[in-house]
Amino acid sequence: MKFEHYDDAALRAQLRGDRFAVVYRIRGGEREALEIAEAMCVEQTVEFPARHIECPAIHDGILGQIDYDEDAGDGWRRVDITYAGEIAGADFPQLLNVVFGNSSLIPGIVLERICLPEDMKRTFPGPRFGVEGLRERLGVYGRPLAVTALKPMGLPPAALAEIGYQCALGGIDMLKDDHGLMDQPFASFRERVEQVAAAVRRGNEEIGGHTAYIPNVSGSLRHMDDRLKLAVDCGCGAVMVAPGLMGFDLIGYAAEKTGLPVVCHPAWLGSSLHRGEGGVDCACLLGQLPRLAGADITVFPNFGGRFSLTEAECAGIRDMAGEDQGTVRPIFPAPAGGMTFDKVPRMRSFYGDDAALLMGGGLFTAPGGLAENCRRFIEQLNKV
Amino acid sequence: MKFEHYDDAALRAQLRGDRFAVVYRIRGGEREALEIAEAMCVEQTVEFPARHIECPAIHDGILGQIDYDEDAGDGWRRVDITYAGEIAGADFPQLLNVVFGNSSLIPGIVLERICLPEDMKRTFPGPRFGVEGLRERLGVYGRPLAVTALKPMGLPPAALAEIGYQCALGGIDMLKDDHGLMDQPFASFRERVEQVAAAVRRGNEEIGGHTAYIPNVSGSLRHMDDRLKLAVDCGCGAVMVAPGLMGFDLIGYAAEKTGLPVVCHPAWLGSSLHRGEGGVDCACLLGQLPRLAGADITVFPNFGGRFSLTEAECAGIRDMAGEDQGTVRPIFPAPAGGMTFDKVPRMRSFYGDDAALLMGGGLFTAPGGLAENCRRFIEQLNKV
Repeated sequence: MKFEHYDDAALRAQLRGDRFAVVYRIRGGEREALEIAEAMCVEQTVEFPARHIECPAIHDGILGQIDYDEDAGDGWRRVDITYAGEIAGADFPQLLNVVFGNSSLIPGIVLERICLPEDMKRTFPGPRFGVEGLRERLGVYGRPLAVTALKPMGLPPAALAEIGYQCALGGIDMLKDDHGLMDQPFASFRERVEQVAAAVRRGNEEIGGHTAYIPNVSGSLRHMDDRLKLAVDCGCGAVMVAPGLMGFDLIGYAAEKTGLPVVCHPAWLGSSLHRGEGGVDCACLLGQLPRLAGADITVFPNFGGRFSLTEAECAGIRDMAGEDQGTVRPIFPAPAGGMTFDKVPRMRSFYGDDAALLMGGGLFTAPGGLAENCRRFIEQLNKV
Repeated sequence: MKFEHYDDAALRAQLRGDRFAVVYRIRGGEREALEIAEAMCVEQTVEFPARHIECPAIHDGILGQIDYDEDAGDGWRRVDITYAGEIAGADFPQLLNVVFGNSSLIPGIVLERICLPEDMKRTFPGPRFGVEGLRERLGVYGRPLAVTALKPMGLPPAALAEIGYQCALGGIDMLKDDHGLMDQPFASFRERVEQVAAAVRRGNEEIGGHTAYIPNVSGSLRHMDDRLKLAVDCGCGAVMVAPGLMGFDLIGYAAEKTGLPVVCHPAWLGSSLHRGEGGVDCACLLGQLPRLAGADITVFPNFGGRFSLTEAECAGIRDMAGEDQGTVRPIFPAPAGGMTFDKVPRMRSFYGDDAALLMGGGLFTAPGGLAENCRRFIEQLNKV
């Protein structure tokens, strides 16, 4: 069909930027996978029977295009599809929508990687700080960052503040809220953030330290701007966002509103992991998407802990966090879950120095007291 | 360990509300599933080795509690875990976080259903309109709603407006943006919404119609308030939110900011579907969560179309959208994808009258012209 007021030349003139590529794995043989990929080229863009669209520039420019395909082993094919950058516009959610919006609903499709051309990296520039910028803020070089978590839920603000104080006295690099801490009657967001930030500042002043307190801001949008402002006003060192709960766009929004680094937490995100039947590949979900969205640190469940990721999956996240992506800065992978002192050397050799090692319960419950254990953690990391 | 400034009696006094239950399916035999469930009681709350917490009220009140378990067939157990309502507080993202935050990262766990007590339904009241309220707004009773989608991407605002005008002339109940339409150089959000809304209004005036235009607002949070305001200023009949891209909280936020009904779109959400290895059960993901978040309509891929849901899964969504949940209003299930005129009678008998049937490409490409096809769609639904 033809569409009134459609101007083919005008559309063609508006589609001048480079196309971006998305790498998928599709279950099936060559023919089956290519059929699915062809459907995706339509599904992710015009969502309209293509043969009925009598608009050449839509066919040439708006529809997805299969660029490459190869065998990916085990009954899967790897297929690259390119899309016009203009379709994504300047909205990160729309970029994700083009990449995997409707295709996410079809089983047997895995989102593996997004490859942006340089002009789109100006629109989606990634983290503001990254590894280098965060090291500068903290003044920590030549070793992994030492991170712990404020917990357990149920403590009142004064008790959490005491923990923050001890952590700062012990010189931990970063203290993030446990992801369950939000705004609860026994510890409201405001009281917690004010009291913990003040206690951390006091500890920092006493020892000349640099501990950064990182409140979790993954609550209702109704209070988002107020909470982000409070984090800034209290001198917090970063904010933590769970994109599985809030969408990836909040990462960039929080970075822009606060001017602070952003820590990405994987809560709820696990439901999107490809576990055999389709979804988002681990390295993409927990490595590339947080980085592209603008996080400076990506927290994920370490292998060998109580969660499920394999060593290879964790290596994939590590590599995706650190690899050269031109102007998009590398970020810190932050393996977490079940970390103990005796695992630290192995984790350091696995993740390298540009990692943030997160020890929670293991740091609290080891003999010696919290401040002392923080010191021990740092000392352990200071030994090359 | 003990925690300074912890006050057991004070915490106990703050945990007075009813607990809420979450139904999970866990893969494994009875013993294995209960072990995982016990770990979840900790993981979803204190995330701290429980034996080290010397705080009785945290054990009694904050930790999750296994309430019930039964065989769920095929090597799965169904396990109910209850949590203190106070943990969720008044933040919808935090409710979801308690329900499935970290557990989403463990394979073999399915989120099946959230059961809120009455006092929590006051905090999380669900949709503002629901089936009854939306029928009142549209003046449509006794039949399913007829919905179509504005497409294809690539058309300029004037061409989209012409489509909107034809749809209004044809008397369609609702015209939603295709989910790919956001803010693109060839059709900016502002121009599209202004022009389409005006054209729909003109069509409505000519025939005394009620077509509601529903723009997609699933773009960057940076522009969210402006876009929501524009939707109101232009007289749009609802707004559309994709919680897979934006988080479920945006549904309630958009409802509150605009005072309009909200349509939930499943883009990206498919990655969270349980397809055998864990994730969110279909009826929960596309039925209960949109409803609880405050959507008035939930769009999902119909069975027999080009997507993957089974008839049973679609029945589950239908039932979850419509079942009696006390003060939380029923909403319209909106099956979409591959709908054609000949399928309408079967869909009506399957989904019942309290459904919104979404015909996109099939309505555009059927012989007769768009306005005529809209009339035919409505006539078909007016026949009992």
